[in-house]
Amino acid sequence: MNMKFVVHRLGLLILALSGVIALHAGITLIRWQFMGLTEEQDTTAALAVSAVCCGALGTLIWLTSKSKATRLERREAVVLVSLSWIIGAAVCAVPYFVWAMISDNDHAARVAMESPVNVYFESLSGLTTTGATVLTELSTIPKGLLLWRATTHWLGGLGIVVLFVAVLPGIGIGGRRLFSFEAPGPDKSGLHPHIRETARTLFVIYSVLTAVLAVGLMLSGLSPMDAVCHSFATLATGGFSTDDASVAQYNSGAAMMLIIVFMFFAGMNFNLFYHISKGKWKKVIQDTEFRAYLGIVVVAATVVAFSLVGQTFNLTNGREITNASPGDAALQSMFTCISIQTTTGFCTADFDQWPTLAKSILIALTFIGGCAGSTGGGIKVIRIWIVFRTMFSEVDRVVRPNVIRPLRTGEGGVVDQDMRLAVISYAMGVVLLFAAGTITIMLLEPSVGIQTGATASLATLCTTGPGLARVGATQNYAFFGDASKIVMCVLMLLGRLEVFAIACLFSPHFWRNS
Amino acid sequence: MNMKFVVHRLGLLILALSGVIALHAGITLIRWQFMGLTEEQDTTAALAVSAVCCGALGTLIWLTSKSKATRLERREAVVLVSLSWIIGAAVCAVPYFVWAMISDNDHAARVAMESPVNVYFESLSGLTTTGATVLTELSTIPKGLLLWRATTHWLGGLGIVVLFVAVLPGIGIGGRRLFSFEAPGPDKSGLHPHIRETARTLFVIYSVLTAVLAVGLMLSGLSPMDAVCHSFATLATGGFSTDDASVAQYNSGAAMMLIIVFMFFAGMNFNLFYHISKGKWKKVIQDTEFRAYLGIVVVAATVVAFSLVGQTFNLTNGREITNASPGDAALQSMFTCISIQTTTGFCTADFDQWPTLAKSILIALTFIGGCAGSTGGGIKVIRIWIVFRTMFSEVDRVVRPNVIRPLRTGEGGVVDQDMRLAVISYAMGVVLLFAAGTITIMLLEPSVGIQTGATASLATLCTTGPGLARVGATQNYAFFGDASKIVMCVLMLLGRLEVFAIACLFSPHFWRNS
Repeated sequence: MNMKFVVHRLGLLILALSGVIALHAGITLIRWQFMGLTEEQDTTAALAVSAVCCGALGTLIWLTSKSKATRLERREAVVLVSLSWIIGAAVCAVPYFVWAMISDNDHAARVAMESPVNVYFESLSGLTTTGATVLTELSTIPKGLLLWRATTHWLGGLGIVVLFVAVLPGIGIGGRRLFSFEAPGPDKSGLHPHIRETARTLFVIYSVLTAVLAVGLMLSGLSPMDAVCHSFATLATGGFSTDDASVAQYNSGAAMMLIIVFMFFAGMNFNLFYHISKGKWKKVIQDTEFRAYLGIVVVAATVVAFSLVGQTFNLTNGREITNASPGDAALQSMFTCISIQTTTGFCTADFDQWPTLAKSILIALTFIGGCAGSTGGGIKVIRIWIVFRTMFSEVDRVVRPNVIRPLRTGEGGVVDQDMRLAVISYAMGVVLLFAAGTITIMLLEPSVGIQTGATASLATLCTTGPGLARVGATQNYAFFGDASKIVMCVLMLLGRLEVFAIACLFSPHFWRNS
Repeated sequence: MNMKFVVHRLGLLILALSGVIALHAGITLIRWQFMGLTEEQDTTAALAVSAVCCGALGTLIWLTSKSKATRLERREAVVLVSLSWIIGAAVCAVPYFVWAMISDNDHAARVAMESPVNVYFESLSGLTTTGATVLTELSTIPKGLLLWRATTHWLGGLGIVVLFVAVLPGIGIGGRRLFSFEAPGPDKSGLHPHIRETARTLFVIYSVLTAVLAVGLMLSGLSPMDAVCHSFATLATGGFSTDDASVAQYNSGAAMMLIIVFMFFAGMNFNLFYHISKGKWKKVIQDTEFRAYLGIVVVAATVVAFSLVGQTFNLTNGREITNASPGDAALQSMFTCISIQTTTGFCTADFDQWPTLAKSILIALTFIGGCAGSTGGGIKVIRIWIVFRTMFSEVDRVVRPNVIRPLRTGEGGVVDQDMRLAVISYAMGVVLLFAAGTITIMLLEPSVGIQTGATASLATLCTTGPGLARVGATQNYAFFGDASKIVMCVLMLLGRLEVFAIACLFSPHFWRNS
């Protein structure tokens, strides 16, 4: 293991993040000096100090760890990916902490940021595109800092898409096993000159979608700042908003519809946008995972909508929907189902008040998650599809043990035994981690019930954000103790980096030379 | 599909069960006439009427369905096995129902038996060796009827052992896949002359163990009737007792220790007793599943015992354990952990009052269950072992995708990819059925919380019996509505017949000619 080379790359990452922080310091400086927003003075100072400190640290690490290696081995890549998120979150947490130290704002949000665990949780929740927050009274935080918070989503989402679509296909389960039969660009032979090109294409697609949504949101009445924050959080399937009322703060059906559409896009495999950009619509329509994804969303939203008609529940902005009309039910159901399945976690309705059937469907959607190669979390639609197909074929084999049917995707690819085993092991791993997380949280927090414990574990592992009961749509993660927050950080990392990338760091074989 | 042949065999099963009912009528007649127990008059009448009616029905079916076939095809065997439990439970329910009709006993237990759903639930809970009961005030039921109730356990347990060790190795997942590398006797070629011989050996082992326990319990102070009832329920890992206080009614450490040992035996693969009877102790000690089973029980009981020291909780007989001593904690923990893991479900302590850690471990043990080829339910130890080994090897493969390590058992057998896929699919099937059962029960019973809903689903699917909250150690299943009870009957059947046997009845391929 050439650890020095890994550290060298991490230095570069820290430098790059400092650059983004510096860019934000520039934006807040403009807001303060030219737009007269005095509350951005502290934000500018905080961002500038953070950029300088992190930049110095990054440069130091980068310079002291020069290595002659030019190519990452597989194990080094796994370590680098895991440490990128772990250390990246620490760097991204610095602006919150510095701002809390220098600002004289006396609201709960700033006080919460005085805790290193809190700011790390918030920062990791941003980078992993979870969107679980420990901050309340978001409107008391300067918009400049909220933009930084939204940016952590956007960076994390970009990182994940590039990682799983362009880079990781060379590394393992999350990537290659799922993509080798459908992905364009990278082939199976590990790191590859095409990676740079694929990554650039993905960056363009991701940026264009973000920009289109931001313009759309501005046209539907949001301020430019709010539009950008929400479009960052949407494309990353993150879920951080700029107000405790989340998307319901605007009371705008147009904004809701736009966000519904773009959350759906963000949950799609980004390879499909590559096909679309080449005009190959047929490839999208034939895609097995896309069809399953669309089917699940439509069925779930329809059933939930029917269960909501005539019900009474609150919106997250406090307004009560009494005896919900079919139109209200359909809109709230569609928004919530897509938000939860794509693991975005934006809320407009307090679904904690919904009927048991609706809540059960939302929990199932959390497990399912978005498509592979999207910014969404969860188990992923293609894995769920493979798991169910495998189980059905096992039932068949009780009667006809000698008939082996190959599992084919719509595109004509074949999912072999090896891939099925990897996928079903992964799904089982998620279920077991969910159970272990639930038990650990309940042991650490004797006062929370099983609904809170289980959904906090699930919503962080699947990078959704909101759960039920005390982590429900109108609640947040502020009340948890530090130990629980650290456990949830581990769950977010495991969920985001697809379990095995992290898990193999703890495998004894991993560190042995071979 | 030669349905006539299947019906013919079912006729024979009904006849055989009528014979057992008639035997019980004889026993109660002796108790009534020669021991002067007048409450057995109604029981004798009920059992005699049931025996005659069922006998007549069985004879009629048997005579009208004669078929020239002599050999069951695979699909016919699956149908026969499933229908045997479904129809067998109806036959075994008749004595309860007839007794409820003719007795003038006015306690809750008899009133409950007036409901066909209740008696079917009780009977199926007996045959599947679940031990979940809808009856309260058990002491108001004549012992003759309680003996019949215990006998349903014993018959069900015998049926399962014979089925999975001797017969089913020719049929599918539940059996062959797990046994082909270790079972003596039957080989892979389907139905086989050795089956009869293996079945006879198993019958002898099962009967000898039952008799030894019954004598032991009598020596430790139980009445012969109670000793027999409890030894039937122990060897079958059933859990029906003769009093609401379950095993705590005797306040006898000796009885508890004896039952602990024999529950452990009942959770072992019965093949191992075959080895023991041949003096091959080494085969037992080397057995991978046995070692895992022993390890899990010891670790779980130790952790639970530590968590109980100093705690205060009630026993099921109402006595309070205040500030539990290490001795009390160890005894209660050992009894409860073994009772739950083997899915017996006897209770001495109200573990609903235990700390979260202890309850979490008990829930994990319920999922794990006994060994394959035992009377215990759950996922089964060997499957859990294969699932975890498979998951660890998948983690390894993230780093070294081209290294495939064969998964070896202690006996030198190799678990191939095919078997791993079958096993992990099975485990996933149990998890999904547990979730589906929980949601269905919660939708049908709006008043029960998630703890009750989830553990009722789990405790019936894994054939344990007691769960937590309203189905806890001192509670029962009486309060559920008929629809929920029917759902739980389905769960018990699925759990007992190892999911796929039932599931494939619903597979479209199953009914197609091929």
